Amino acid sequence: MVPHLVTALTGPINELEQRVLESMPAIERWFRLEWMEHTPPFYTSVDIRNAGYKLAPVDTNLFPGGFNNLTEPMLPLAIQAAMAAIEKICPEAKNLLLIPENHTRNSFYLTNVKQLVRIFSSAGLNVRLGSLDPAITEPTELQLPDGSSLTYEPLVRSPRRLGLKDFDPCTVLLNNDLSSGLPKILENLNEQYLLPPLHAGWAVRRKTNHFHSYEEVAKKFAKLLGMDPWLINPMYSHCGQVDWTEGTGLDCVQTNVDALLTKIRRKHKEYGINEKPFVVVKADNGTYGMGVMTVRDAKELDEVNRRTRNKMDVVKDGQQVTEVIIQEGVPTYERVNEAVAEPVVYMIDRYVVGGFYRMHAERGIDENLNAPGASFVPLAFAESSHLPRPGEKPGVSAPNRFYMYGVIGRLAMLAASYELEATDPEAEVYE
Amino acid sequence: MVPHLVTALTGPINELEQRVLESMPAIERWFRLEWMEHTPPFYTSVDIRNAGYKLAPVDTNLFPGGFNNLTEPMLPLAIQAAMAAIEKICPEAKNLLLIPENHTRNSFYLTNVKQLVRIFSSAGLNVRLGSLDPAITEPTELQLPDGSSLTYEPLVRSPRRLGLKDFDPCTVLLNNDLSSGLPKILENLNEQYLLPPLHAGWAVRRKTNHFHSYEEVAKKFAKLLGMDPWLINPMYSHCGQVDWTEGTGLDCVQTNVDALLTKIRRKHKEYGINEKPFVVVKADNGTYGMGVMTVRDAKELDEVNRRTRNKMDVVKDGQQVTEVIIQEGVPTYERVNEAVAEPVVYMIDRYVVGGFYRMHAERGIDENLNAPGASFVPLAFAESSHLPRPGEKPGVSAPNRFYMYGVIGRLAMLAASYELEATDPEAEVYE
Repeated sequence: MVPHLVTALTGPINELEQRVLESMPAIERWFRLEWMEHTPPFYTSVDIRNAGYKLAPVDTNLFPGGFNNLTEPMLPLAIQAAMAAIEKICPEAKNLLLIPENHTRNSFYLTNVKQLVRIFSSAGLNVRLGSLDPAITEPTELQLPDGSSLTYEPLVRSPRRLGLKDFDPCTVLLNNDLSSGLPKILENLNEQYLLPPLHAGWAVRRKTNHFHSYEEVAKKFAKLLGMDPWLINPMYSHCGQVDWTEGTGLDCVQTNVDALLTKIRRKHKEYGINEKPFVVVKADNGTYGMGVMTVRDAKELDEVNRRTRNKMDVVKDGQQVTEVIIQEGVPTYERVNEAVAEPVVYMIDRYVVGGFYRMHAERGIDENLNAPGASFVPLAFAESSHLPRPGEKPGVSAPNRFYMYGVIGRLAMLAASYELEATDPEAEVYE
Repeated sequence: MVPHLVTALTGPINELEQRVLESMPAIERWFRLEWMEHTPPFYTSVDIRNAGYKLAPVDTNLFPGGFNNLTEPMLPLAIQAAMAAIEKICPEAKNLLLIPENHTRNSFYLTNVKQLVRIFSSAGLNVRLGSLDPAITEPTELQLPDGSSLTYEPLVRSPRRLGLKDFDPCTVLLNNDLSSGLPKILENLNEQYLLPPLHAGWAVRRKTNHFHSYEEVAKKFAKLLGMDPWLINPMYSHCGQVDWTEGTGLDCVQTNVDALLTKIRRKHKEYGINEKPFVVVKADNGTYGMGVMTVRDAKELDEVNRRTRNKMDVVKDGQQVTEVIIQEGVPTYERVNEAVAEPVVYMIDRYVVGGFYRMHAERGIDENLNAPGASFVPLAFAESSHLPRPGEKPGVSAPNRFYMYGVIGRLAMLAASYELEATDPEAEVYE
């Protein structure tokens, strides 16, 4: 079950690990108290980077695909978490409408949808699939590689409710990240639960809002453990008006890259870290690893060629990049066999339900791994994520490392909860 | 993971299995609705008998030991369920006081206690052990076979709270079934949660109350599935005044045994079952498999010798048997290798978290297996209890069978919930 991991973990991370393990009951209680005040996202996946000296989330996905990469032993955890989630949202629910992505030909993605159907059916719901794709005008069967199939149906909208023909759900669950805009058909569904909410869609969501919230969460958590939040928090800054094609706004990016590299250098000096700092420039509204650039020196941006500019300019579904986030680069020192790897942690409601390693044989430790050619190795989460053994030597025990990843994943999930509260357009304002 | 099982399952049970699998979302929703009205016991284990033609719970334990028999892969499920349980009861809790059984020298039992400590620590609580044993007057270290140890501490009672020295818990969790009476020190703890409640202790609990509630639950469930409740419900009757030593009250037992055997014979005829009916006579307040007798003919009771009478007369901690339950015998046709086996399902809060087979090489299919010489084989629950595959042929798929056991286990747990409501001495009566 446990993949063979080559890690090179020294210094502060081991101290951090030690402190996390010793504080386990306090950490779990802290999360419990946070969840009394804040609502967890329905489901979340978090990409984590383990640099040895630093452990940080680099991306938090509120419409996670990839449930197909969770192994069979992880599914009961997912089902149990799904039961707990449904019970809170809509305990009398019979029906769940799941809205998948439109790019229906990707068999990995279809297998992910099938896995979600299985999880929520096992949790006691009739699950059917409704598509936002205008090409789906009648029930359409899609074949999976294992010989089974899924049926995508056209959505049926009444003035106040969304459903399918002869199917009226209590909850509408989005597995479509709404990169191409917020569809009118999803607006004003005041009688039903639409999860995640519309403002979690990439058409309006911004990474900077997320990492602003994450910084707040990391500070609170660091205070609980009496440590420097930098050990779990990637620094970042933001530029609002960038046009890669025209080349305007690049001076803002350049200035911010330079400033951030200086801040990282200072931190490296403080901790005696012998690493070349780098930053990652990403679309602030991007997803799917598109529009991501690794920069080691601000001067590199002078030489950005047309091809890179075009790549940066357009992310998924043809969205234009105008806002960018400049984020401290956290190299990954995890390897599965020879390939560079990063852990991805999956959560349903407040519970860690599984995870895997995303690995990429042709990418470097400072590059984005979420790119064509990536493959996946399951983590042994079902056996160990909750089961650290506090007596063991840090850096050695796989269960301990995985518990840490579950903690960092949940910190990012909590940040997403803060973020969604802060950006909720319908939030009541108390002055 | 999956133990090699030799089963001989034919006829009605396969139809039942088919119906259970087809109705999975409806069943899960039904449980969800029941739990809106009723509070699940904190934790429960249920002994199940699979006769092929009938599947029924035969014992429901509200102070389950044997958590040591759950395998590592099952623990994350247990921890997740424990988190959900705590969150509902006492979300701000830091401390949990666990009160174990007094017979502290049994290393299997101590390993069970250690497992419980591990589960609740991982769920975010400081767990300490307080003993009801008057011999524990100072912190006492008890050695486990693996070289670790547990510390039992004397209880400290204030007028309204129970704790240990410098330890004030929000919840007091009993893993002591109170066979020897309800200790004064546990009374009137109105400021704390005492779980399970005192009236769940065997000093006052009665099996007949439980099976009365189970009958109600089985009828509701059978109605949902459109089937005969007998297929999951063991018939029973009751005698209130039996003195085995004096031989008084045995006529009541004899009459009831005879009547019950006749009822079973009628059911066997209805279903074309070619089995010799038998009943099991048990102490109505008993536990640990003591005071259990298999009877195939009422005349056998004429010949009950002194030794059997003495055995029947005293159950755990010297309790006298005066009330008995006469229960339809359900033979077990499950075998692990050559030994007769019965599944035991474990639950925390409303969730199935694991299970194992109790097997006994020297016992028959119509005998109690909870006796010296029993051994345990883990069930592959973590991988499969929630994961039936509705398309598969009934009786063949281990995951399907295990899902069934999880359903029956939860029906018995629900019955325990009804039972505890009905027998609560502090319940408010609405007329």
